[in-house]
Amino acid sequence: MKLKELAASLDCRVEECPDADVEITGVRGIEDAGAGHVTFLANPKYGPKLKATKATAVIAAKAVPGLATLVSRNPYHDFARALELFYQPPRPKPGIHASAAIAATARIGEGASIGPFVAVGENVVIGRNVALHPHVVIYEGAQIGDDFIAHSHAVVREFCQIGNRVILQNGVVVGGDGFGFAKQADGTHYKIVQSGVTIVEDDVEVQSLTSVDRASVGETRVKRGAKIDSLVQIGHGCVVGEDNIICAQTGLAGSSILEKDVLLAGQVGISGHLTIHEGAIVYAQSGIGGDVAPHTRVSGSPAFDAGEWLRAITAFQKLPEMLRTLREISRELKKHGER
Amino acid sequence: MKLKELAASLDCRVEECPDADVEITGVRGIEDAGAGHVTFLANPKYGPKLKATKATAVIAAKAVPGLATLVSRNPYHDFARALELFYQPPRPKPGIHASAAIAATARIGEGASIGPFVAVGENVVIGRNVALHPHVVIYEGAQIGDDFIAHSHAVVREFCQIGNRVILQNGVVVGGDGFGFAKQADGTHYKIVQSGVTIVEDDVEVQSLTSVDRASVGETRVKRGAKIDSLVQIGHGCVVGEDNIICAQTGLAGSSILEKDVLLAGQVGISGHLTIHEGAIVYAQSGIGGDVAPHTRVSGSPAFDAGEWLRAITAFQKLPEMLRTLREISRELKKHGER
Amino acid sequence: MKLKELAASLDCRVEECPDADVEITGVRGIEDAGAGHVTFLANPKYGPKLKATKATAVIAAKAVPGLATLVSRNPYHDFARALELFYQPPRPKPGIHASAAIAATARIGEGASIGPFVAVGENVVIGRNVALHPHVVIYEGAQIGDDFIAHSHAVVREFCQIGNRVILQNGVVVGGDGFGFAKQADGTHYKIVQSGVTIVEDDVEVQSLTSVDRASVGETRVKRGAKIDSLVQIGHGCVVGEDNIICAQTGLAGSSILEKDVLLAGQVGISGHLTIHEGAIVYAQSGIGGDVAPHTRVSGSPAFDAGEWLRAITAFQKLPEMLRTLREISRELKKHGER
Repeated sequence: MKLKELAASLDCRVEECPDADVEITGVRGIEDAGAGHVTFLANPKYGPKLKATKATAVIAAKAVPGLATLVSRNPYHDFARALELFYQPPRPKPGIHASAAIAATARIGEGASIGPFVAVGENVVIGRNVALHPHVVIYEGAQIGDDFIAHSHAVVREFCQIGNRVILQNGVVVGGDGFGFAKQADGTHYKIVQSGVTIVEDDVEVQSLTSVDRASVGETRVKRGAKIDSLVQIGHGCVVGEDNIICAQTGLAGSSILEKDVLLAGQVGISGHLTIHEGAIVYAQSGIGGDVAPHTRVSGSPAFDAGEWLRAITAFQKLPEMLRTLREISRELKKHGER
Repeated sequence: MKLKELAASLDCRVEECPDADVEITGVRGIEDAGAGHVTFLANPKYGPKLKATKATAVIAAKAVPGLATLVSRNPYHDFARALELFYQPPRPKPGIHASAAIAATARIGEGASIGPFVAVGENVVIGRNVALHPHVVIYEGAQIGDDFIAHSHAVVREFCQIGNRVILQNGVVVGGDGFGFAKQADGTHYKIVQSGVTIVEDDVEVQSLTSVDRASVGETRVKRGAKIDSLVQIGHGCVVGEDNIICAQTGLAGSSILEKDVLLAGQVGISGHLTIHEGAIVYAQSGIGGDVAPHTRVSGSPAFDAGEWLRAITAFQKLPEMLRTLREISRELKKHGER
Repeated sequence: MKLKELAASLDCRVEECPDADVEITGVRGIEDAGAGHVTFLANPKYGPKLKATKATAVIAAKAVPGLATLVSRNPYHDFARALELFYQPPRPKPGIHASAAIAATARIGEGASIGPFVAVGENVVIGRNVALHPHVVIYEGAQIGDDFIAHSHAVVREFCQIGNRVILQNGVVVGGDGFGFAKQADGTHYKIVQSGVTIVEDDVEVQSLTSVDRASVGETRVKRGAKIDSLVQIGHGCVVGEDNIICAQTGLAGSSILEKDVLLAGQVGISGHLTIHEGAIVYAQSGIGGDVAPHTRVSGSPAFDAGEWLRAITAFQKLPEMLRTLREISRELKKHGER
């Protein structure tokens, strides 16, 4: 693809460019790019690295002197769009593989690509243009929208509902049983049948090996546009808000609510029955035991204001010295009769 | 179902009830319940919420004035039992699906429901009334009791043993190789064949995407009635005690022993070769590096007495202020010639 | 097997042995061993336990008085080799199971053992003597070396490359999409197609339910001899170094580099775009936010020198007492007019 064609596709102006007919063969990071590659500058802090890049062009917010630049209002977004021009992930072949086990009562929309050993249960309804990779399992009564992509070993459990344009990476479990047991007088735990469902709204993506449990009663819900990373646990009855970003290995206990635009970094733990309000950010490895106010940033386990936490954790390294000083002072004061 | 029928099923007395013939159509939480629903009050702290409930009746320890009450000695347990009257999770159809690959030498008891693409290896023995959802894999030589339920993509590895009434949610791995390597002189790691098994006793449930590793030699054991949540790692040679509750994303390194009635909250880490004694509770995100005494509660990483930890972590937030005060005092004392 | 045969196999000298013709039937730990078993002493701290062992012989670095000893330069390694003489894990039957779905364009080397319901995509190349357990999925265009072992529900995604003698335990995902999204002006997140691959070099083992994400561009790489435990997340664009040991439930965000001989204990979190240099050790539950120097040991979240951390975390338990003392001193000094 010629540089000018790429620019036209992305609707970007070209600057600092002696030859807009040069051939672009792919997209790479600043340091890995070579001749024929376009790279991108999304974070200004990496700007100095551009001096050494071997890329033929860069997608950036403003012209880079001496380097052909596709001037973009959102370079990271246009990098993503550029990538799609050079790479499209493969789908299973169109049609339903002969080995798939599709229940007679299941309805599947047109344009489906369904791979080997897919199992679709009774009364399932699936929309148009879905891609089910080998070994996907859809349990009885599930309802799924259009343009669904599910990778191998992803599962949608009984009666769960999936919106449009949802992507499940490998091994994701939507609607597995929640962890609910009633303790009995003899100390044993009696299973609470998990009668509720999981509802996943439009434009959600869930990455590999994440579990979004069904509810005991009612529903667990992942709202429109939320993105959930790998190995995350969403407990029964939780609500994940619109456009939330939940990073890897984070866990939510039951019945907690995340409002819209919440960001949870990696390995965060969220207790049950609480609310994280709109726009809050929780830093990595934090533990949340109570509500988090809107548009705040918290850190620590248990978490509090991230700025205060940073001061506290910095002071933490001085604790042995503080302890020593305190003992010396105490001793001195005793000697002087003041304690 | 009429309220009086529900009451009879649960063996509960009805109080505050003008009409025990009223129709009950389902079970819901206090806030979600509507007309026709029965709700429950298990934790007295939610009592005030009952004033606003739209439920037709409540399961509670004592009569709620003005609300039809099923008086129960264990409301949470009776809520669980009530749920079962309205919802039963689907099972695969009775019989063995034509696509399942069952080894000729495998023996499966009567009443089995085995879904598509289930694979059962040589010399496997499986009890009565089991439900194997699509894509369950049972490796060679495994032995499994009655009333086993395994969800899609659950695996029981070679020679492992499973008791009666065990439930495995989706993607559970019972008996995957433990993490054992012997370091060699050249710095490489030599795999230690994991020759032992995993034994899962009666009435255990394991939730989605949890791994219970097999032992290098001997066994890993999950004892009667233990419940293990999602994304938990049980290392090789561990013992999980009777009626243990292990919450999501907790990990046990090798050869540790949990005695009976231990509770591990979420994201806890347990080192190897230690014992957590009967009835101990470990709070979320704690790290355990040594034995934990019976019936104690611990918190922190490394963990110590939970009450002391709470005071320490509360003081932690005051660390920057303490550091400032300490420096001021130090300075003052120097000025006065006392330091 | 006679003891003298075992000794010959391991190339060990026998000492303290009245009868090298005694029959050895298996390998066990010191406390579990009985008559006919050989045990091992790898860590001198367990030496005193040998007095009570019922084992017939021991593999140890030097002769144990009164106990038949196989004298070994690396007892742990020879224990591993001894185990192999008594136990070999089962493989699927030689040949390709009739139910497997192998694309016409896939090439598979000789000696393969491929179980039921394995799916191999177009243009896949697989080496010799591989064992694919039931339900393994190899996506289009993947390239795999010799002696590969993949357990049920393991997945190798499109175009990924796997070296020789690699082992994937159950449910491992190699090359699932990385977590990459570009934020748009309206607050929604635009998926960045993950066009790169994952490359797994020779002699790597990955344990159950671990995810090694593919890269947005370029590659994610796990280098020769690295061993990765269960439920680990390796983010897109990371490099895991030669002979690394990464324990369970650890997570790496994107683009971080681990040099050779790094050890990450369990539940560690590693931020993006940083380097952990050769030979560094990160203790359990630590959080790494910046580079770690070669051959250092760090602990804490955020992590710092492990020795200093130990002093700080020990002092942490004294924080409430320190706070009290500090307030008393402050009060005293005010009373004396010095503050």
